[in-house]
Amino acid sequence: MSILRTPGGKRGRGRPRAGEDSARDAIVSAAEAEFAEHGYDGATMRGIAARAGVDAAAIHHHFGTKADLFTTVVDFPVRPDKALEEILAGPVDEIGVRLVTYLLVALEDKPTRRKAVSMVRTSLGNRAATPLLAGFLEREVIRKVAARIDGEDVDLRASLVGSQIGGLLIARYVLKLPALAKAPVDEVAARVGAAVQTYLAG
Amino acid sequence: MSILRTPGGKRGRGRPRAGEDSARDAIVSAAEAEFAEHGYDGATMRGIAARAGVDAAAIHHHFGTKADLFTTVVDFPVRPDKALEEILAGPVDEIGVRLVTYLLVALEDKPTRRKAVSMVRTSLGNRAATPLLAGFLEREVIRKVAARIDGEDVDLRASLVGSQIGGLLIARYVLKLPALAKAPVDEVAARVGAAVQTYLAG
Repeated sequence: MSILRTPGGKRGRGRPRAGEDSARDAIVSAAEAEFAEHGYDGATMRGIAARAGVDAAAIHHHFGTKADLFTTVVDFPVRPDKALEEILAGPVDEIGVRLVTYLLVALEDKPTRRKAVSMVRTSLGNRAATPLLAGFLEREVIRKVAARIDGEDVDLRASLVGSQIGGLLIARYVLKLPALAKAPVDEVAARVGAAVQTYLAG
Repeated sequence: MSILRTPGGKRGRGRPRAGEDSARDAIVSAAEAEFAEHGYDGATMRGIAARAGVDAAAIHHHFGTKADLFTTVVDFPVRPDKALEEILAGPVDEIGVRLVTYLLVALEDKPTRRKAVSMVRTSLGNRAATPLLAGFLEREVIRKVAARIDGEDVDLRASLVGSQIGGLLIARYVLKLPALAKAPVDEVAARVGAAVQTYLAG
């Protein structure tokens, strides 16, 4: 399912009209330029609207939030930020296992996995792309986890949660370390969940 | 310090003679070709010797072991495999914190860090380079950790140790997640050590 075709859940699956197509293209091009110039945090919906020659409401209509627009532009195959909203509403001690389970289950699907691997390769291999991914993860994932946990050094501990989950995805799907690449989702999720729990509990 | 100039600790820092220079160049070229064709595990010292037109003893003399040669060829700035020998000789419950401390302390040095980041970017960004790094890590790091721990699924648990340490390096030095990038080495090592311990203890 392409995020582009169901932005923010506000559009159906029908073929868009020609005028909407060109407005969307203009917004995507403007967003690419704005994100490249100002980074994820620095980019604004108003700046993107000005570049595209549309008003900000048109962007919200076509794409939803800044996170929705960014993940469309960079073609994210999964939405950890969306999944997180629901996961964070549950018990803190299940954040790790639930987030890992969500990602691993999503990546069981081969086209999704291929897209995710490609995105990781590009983001880490390309000096310009890395800070964009980092900015998105920091703002939309890490800080939300940090806001949900108690105790000291919540930002550091949330960053370490991210480091383990990112490292897991790279080791399993990019490096394909044999024992990890073939382990069942529930076993990996249980073990990684327990490790991540040490960060969540502080 | 270049590994190339002190291969296997068998050579001093003096300027090599001209004949040795050309033998070394031939071996490095042969090794690059052999590793590219057969991967880390499949490459043999004998195959490299045959390509270079030297005998295997000459390679051992110039470069030491296959791991020494590989890390020279790909210009590894740190030697986790070497550090691991000493770390694994100590208590199991200190493997995580000691390995993390070793790496973070080594990467406090800016040229070392720059080289490590560049190597990570190349290895993950380049489809041909990824399996080589994975093969080296699997053979020289993961399996040695697996051999040192007890209980079930030692290969999976050792791979997860690797996933956390790799993810930590990427999150701190490549993505530079703010709270993690600025945290002191000992605090990061203590927290990650505790998480890694859940894998080591099983």
